[in-house]
Amino acid sequence: MKAVVTVKLKPGVLDPQGKAIGHALEGLGFDGIADVRVGKVIELDLHETDPAAAREAAAAMARRLLANTVIESFDVTLA
Amino acid sequence: MKAVVTVKLKPGVLDPQGKAIGHALEGLGFDGIADVRVGKVIELDLHETDPAAAREAAAAMARRLLANTVIESFDVTLA
Repeated sequence: MKAVVTVKLKPGVLDPQGKAIGHALEGLGFDGIADVRVGKVIELDLHETDPAAAREAAAAMARRLLANTVIESFDVTLA
Repeated sequence: MKAVVTVKLKPGVLDPQGKAIGHALEGLGFDGIADVRVGKVIELDLHETDPAAAREAAAAMARRLLANTVIESFDVTLA
């Protein structure tokens, strides 16, 4: 069963990578960009077949390693 | 209007970052992990208010800068 963990910076946390992408897009001629924020998506292919258990396992991995919960939030979806 | 571009490595492209995360999770005691793949998610806050135009603008940005379409695929969702 596949679980997808999406990790994003919490609102208010500076995102220099997003700012750099925004500036680069403007430099390429794209306009109308108010803000850009960048996050990670981690696809976990798990042997677990129970959806609730897979979701809980992915959330535990996110809390332990995948996300820095001081500055990042995450959510788990099953695919 | 917010457009979210998700960029993933194409199937078959080696993902050393994903492999490292998989090994790290196993080292932390998580088992039952068949595979891990890592991608990026770019949230674009656009002034554009027309959904079709916003989607097309985000796709153009992805093709031009956000994704390396030789080894990465992307999809655009509106939020």
